[in-house]
Amino acid sequence: MANKVVGIALLGSTGSIGRQTLDIVRSFNTRFRIIGLACRKESELFRQQINEFKPEYICMETGMQSQGSPLSCTLEEMASLPGADLVVIATTGKAGLKPAISALKAGKTVAVANKEILVMAGELLFTLAARHHATILPIDSEHCAVWQCLRGEDTPVSRILLTASGGPFINWPRDRLAKVTATDALKHPTWQMGPKVTIDSATLFNKGLEVIEAHWLFNIPYEKIETIIHRQSIIHSMVEFQDGSVKAQLSYPDMHLPIQYALFYPQRVRNDNISRIDFNKPHTLTFEPVVYDDYPCLKLALEASRKGGTYPAVLCAADEIAVDLFLKNSIGFTEIATIIEKTLSIHEPVINPTLEDIVLSDTWARETALKAARKEF
Amino acid sequence: MANKVVGIALLGSTGSIGRQTLDIVRSFNTRFRIIGLACRKESELFRQQINEFKPEYICMETGMQSQGSPLSCTLEEMASLPGADLVVIATTGKAGLKPAISALKAGKTVAVANKEILVMAGELLFTLAARHHATILPIDSEHCAVWQCLRGEDTPVSRILLTASGGPFINWPRDRLAKVTATDALKHPTWQMGPKVTIDSATLFNKGLEVIEAHWLFNIPYEKIETIIHRQSIIHSMVEFQDGSVKAQLSYPDMHLPIQYALFYPQRVRNDNISRIDFNKPHTLTFEPVVYDDYPCLKLALEASRKGGTYPAVLCAADEIAVDLFLKNSIGFTEIATIIEKTLSIHEPVINPTLEDIVLSDTWARETALKAARKEF
Repeated sequence: MANKVVGIALLGSTGSIGRQTLDIVRSFNTRFRIIGLACRKESELFRQQINEFKPEYICMETGMQSQGSPLSCTLEEMASLPGADLVVIATTGKAGLKPAISALKAGKTVAVANKEILVMAGELLFTLAARHHATILPIDSEHCAVWQCLRGEDTPVSRILLTASGGPFINWPRDRLAKVTATDALKHPTWQMGPKVTIDSATLFNKGLEVIEAHWLFNIPYEKIETIIHRQSIIHSMVEFQDGSVKAQLSYPDMHLPIQYALFYPQRVRNDNISRIDFNKPHTLTFEPVVYDDYPCLKLALEASRKGGTYPAVLCAADEIAVDLFLKNSIGFTEIATIIEKTLSIHEPVINPTLEDIVLSDTWARETALKAARKEF
Repeated sequence: MANKVVGIALLGSTGSIGRQTLDIVRSFNTRFRIIGLACRKESELFRQQINEFKPEYICMETGMQSQGSPLSCTLEEMASLPGADLVVIATTGKAGLKPAISALKAGKTVAVANKEILVMAGELLFTLAARHHATILPIDSEHCAVWQCLRGEDTPVSRILLTASGGPFINWPRDRLAKVTATDALKHPTWQMGPKVTIDSATLFNKGLEVIEAHWLFNIPYEKIETIIHRQSIIHSMVEFQDGSVKAQLSYPDMHLPIQYALFYPQRVRNDNISRIDFNKPHTLTFEPVVYDDYPCLKLALEASRKGGTYPAVLCAADEIAVDLFLKNSIGFTEIATIIEKTLSIHEPVINPTLEDIVLSDTWARETALKAARKEF
């Protein structure tokens, strides 16, 4: 796509990744053109984005329907617009799944920040991508790091080392964790992110999703993907090669960089709005092994990943419900894992699931997770 | 060179890098074949190496001359043997210069551990390499790290960040440094190396040489090459790209890895004799800015690099003399810098030097450094 104007359809434009994607587009406005913008519901911010970027198409789940310009369309239509060279899926939860399928069937390059869809339907999406010569790119700091480390490397890797900050409650005893409130948990030590991913970072559930994401994106068996605690979030992940050499990618925690990397790939472009590591200051970087018993949500995610089938879809749906309940102060922090575990424990999986199986499992898991929260089983 | 047997001429086989190169050859003895072995003087070790690796040719500056098999030859002849696909220059000081020229003129791939020759004659060697379609590869942990980070990257880099352990005397006051003995200085905190490079590491002179080496190897202007202190010697160097992203290469300090990387490039091959970073243990990695006033030898090297011409040759020769005197307990640790500085201060440089100019400057600098040590000027 070198140097032609790249048309972008951005799904989830008002969320954290959506807004930062528009920052990059704004910085390089001769290079990118927004073809479509989609968000969940009407807002002042969305109206501003429409005024500034003048998309041809917009889409909202609820709220205003456009009369005339810009035209309204569905998420699936937006993801396959002929003018969209790149489809950025910055929605959360399962919202991005159907549009991703639509984009892949249209042979698009799809940059995915909505990691749940890769977890729920990794096999399905990568099979579609291969069949339709479409490309799936990650928008996630860890996977962007791995992707950068893999540039120019053509031998199989020994292992991928995903780094995790460990969240704000690292080493807290269980009784103290039980009293954690949503407000406490929304203070991530190093990253500014949306609420769901912040909670998922505190439980390390997010890292479990990233293991699954890495498995599909880089076609690496699970046993070669490890997680280590790196509290400073400067090293965003590492790759160990066959010869034992390890490569790492470093930058301050700022999602603008992985977003820009995906938008410009394979080019690297200077952007003075992204701050560089200041090596004139001293830095200390630490690595620690993960104490898995402290992170039941991570253990559940890894277990579901190994079982495969519809388990990952159930995992994601149950977590979405549990985190939502926690954010509404309806359940305690440690109950997030309990709800996911109970839901997974009674799931009857489908192997090699179709989209329909995945959607049905998702619906079943949401209902079941709510029942688990109400202690109905 | 994929999968054919690679013939190697190894110059400097009994030194630290030479012995470790033979370890790699021993581990992959169906892949590599030693065509020639050269060392400075006869020794039991050299005889053992000849027995084990059965080279066709040997070369010694002093000592036994072979009668019959293996045949004797000069260093220059060995570096251009038709059977040598790869010439490894693991000599020290200026010893490798003429053989390197001979190898490059023969269009060989030349792996250079003898960094002084790249410093003394970088322009000359890289011009020859281009003219004769020869290749110069680094055998140096820092440059191997940079080289790995640059794989698959095609945009100009922002900067190279060479890491330095800082040596055993980091933050020592000047009066205490003046009393440092050779025995103290030979205890490098993280690397096992030959005596000269260990002293050059303690003064950070070595890092100055590496800046010059990086300039020539990667065709990067000096102002884009920085040095930072990283005491643990786990991160062997880093590259910052245009977008602000930094890539680093990590491994335990063990020269076997950079040697193997150069020998197999572009392949990466498993070698169970090289230990991998144990991420099951906690690690702390630190970066600190260099306090240049604490490292006058580094400052002198950087100054000489910027002046160019025959200054780098004089720099290397004066350091070789000064370090030799220090190792013999003839001068104090802080006098190393004084001798180099005095020698450089009265040098009359030649711009765009020929090999002859470089050799003459070297000879002049050795004599002048000895005079400086005797306080004759």
